[in-house]
Amino acid sequence: MNRRRRIYEGKAKILYEGPEPGTLIQFFKDDATAFNKKKHDVIDGKGVLNNRISEYVFTHLNKIGIPTHFIRRLNMREQLIREVEMIPLEIVVRNVAAGSLSTRLGIEEGTVLPRSIIEFYYKSDQLADPMVSEEHITAFGWANPAELDDIMALAIRVNDFLSGLFLGVGIQLIDFKIECGRLFEGDMMRIILADEISPDSCRLWDIETKEKMDKDRFRQDLGGLVEAYSEVARRLGIINENEPIRGTGPVLVK
Amino acid sequence: MNRRRRIYEGKAKILYEGPEPGTLIQFFKDDATAFNKKKHDVIDGKGVLNNRISEYVFTHLNKIGIPTHFIRRLNMREQLIREVEMIPLEIVVRNVAAGSLSTRLGIEEGTVLPRSIIEFYYKSDQLADPMVSEEHITAFGWANPAELDDIMALAIRVNDFLSGLFLGVGIQLIDFKIECGRLFEGDMMRIILADEISPDSCRLWDIETKEKMDKDRFRQDLGGLVEAYSEVARRLGIINENEPIRGTGPVLVK
Ligand SMILES: Nc1ncnc2c1ncn2[C@@H]1O[C@H](COP(=O)(O)OP(=O)(O)O)[C@@H](O)[C@H]1O
Ligand SMILES: Nc1ncnc2c1ncn2[C@@H]1O[C@H](COP(=O)(O)OP(=O)(O)O)[C@@H](O)[C@H]1O
Ligand SMILES: [Mg+2]
Ligand SMILES: [Mg+2]
Repeated sequence: MNRRRRIYEGKAKILYEGPEPGTLIQFFKDDATAFNKKKHDVIDGKGVLNNRISEYVFTHLNKIGIPTHFIRRLNMREQLIREVEMIPLEIVVRNVAAGSLSTRLGIEEGTVLPRSIIEFYYKSDQLADPMVSEEHITAFGWANPAELDDIMALAIRVNDFLSGLFLGVGIQLIDFKIECGRLFEGDMMRIILADEISPDSCRLWDIETKEKMDKDRFRQDLGGLVEAYSEVARRLGIINENEPIRGTGPVLVK
Repeated sequence: MNRRRRIYEGKAKILYEGPEPGTLIQFFKDDATAFNKKKHDVIDGKGVLNNRISEYVFTHLNKIGIPTHFIRRLNMREQLIREVEMIPLEIVVRNVAAGSLSTRLGIEEGTVLPRSIIEFYYKSDQLADPMVSEEHITAFGWANPAELDDIMALAIRVNDFLSGLFLGVGIQLIDFKIECGRLFEGDMMRIILADEISPDSCRLWDIETKEKMDKDRFRQDLGGLVEAYSEVARRLGIINENEPIRGTGPVLVK
């Protein structure tokens, strides 16, 4: 299986050389990390679920004209993607106060924000992903002002789509994180959506019960992470009712 | 002496009711605090020096058409100012990496930045002045986009003036913090510079020796704070050569 060249191993995924130039294979691991790797665990089945959920979201983003790196899913844990030059930022869009925003600004978790807020974090394990502003990003050349405009427009479109998608299945989109990259085609360069969108990178609350259906189950030791991710996948119609997902066992692929 | 009504006592200054409506008296204490009040000391003479240095800077900013709250100095520790509605932000302009920027982004102290960077911190002792971006500021209504534009234009002009002023006396302006407020005149509202500009709110390094001539002497336990502030005042021509400044003793007012 490992004839392929491994390009990068991150906290939750591995990138392999793809079958053609300009492509990569993105492998979803079961590893969960939080608080800059201070907390780590392996959660059997998480990778399979994230691969499926991210496939579903990126496929539909592509359909509504939001450019993404996603080409197609290859198997339970892998997807074929377009290689991009990553912009070293985590772009966070928030609709409801939670997590670090609540802590830093003293706003109670669950408070609906006066409007959606975009935040940027400089992607660096060593520095623990510090928050940065447009000033830092353009001064240090991580992205230029035109690229930042594209990134923010893209982030807002993704927020609109995801808000609708999750609302439709009884889930409130609290916030999410995306990563973008530069795709070079001939002389042209476009900013496209890369990485993943999954319960690892979103905060998702059941609209009725406010139950957390995302990685906060791991961060806050709430348990039931695979069950929650499976429920997200079920509501989205990605996996069948009552079908348990386990990384090792057989999985029904619709 | 205390017939006047005390409006507010902060970490380094006290505000008293002024002689006319719309005015306040700003009293400079000798207190020094850092790291969100975790460190505190009283440094005999600091208040007198900051009152004089801030007077000097604000007077000249007024002269070049940058609107400030400063009306006139009243005595060794007090100045008459215009009362404004404070915008709850600390606006930091950085020319060279130091302090929290160095720590957060892993940039060695003393590195000249690719360009000046403006940062915003939400002024809250309780939250330890968290960094915020334009998104937070406008979403939470601390300032609107037009006000933020005015604030940034003002910050850049202050940076230009201070860079020149200090360069002229052999001092490198590393960074500084300002605070702004809304001045209401009839139906009109203007953003003006408030608070103080002094070695408490700037990082100032001797151009030759790189010696610190600012509050970092207190933060980093380097000693010689009053001597350093006096040297800044001397170079600016505010106090005479060889004239020691002490809050309690007599002070030569040029
Ligand atoms: N299309 C792409 N091209 C190149 N790199 C990508 C692409 N999509 C995602 N990446 C990068 O691949 C890595 C995914 O693995 P992950 O485990 O999430 O890593 P990390 O721990 O760095 O976040 C990330 O560093 C991400 O920036
Ligand atoms: N012109 C002004 N009108 C009203 N308030 C002002 C004005 N200038 C400064 N202030 C406020 O007065 C206080 C000055 O005292 P200081 O000891 O610096 O307080 P703090 O500990 O809050 O920084 C600050 O809170 C500042 O925002
Ligand atoms: Mg990642
Ligand atoms: Mg102050």
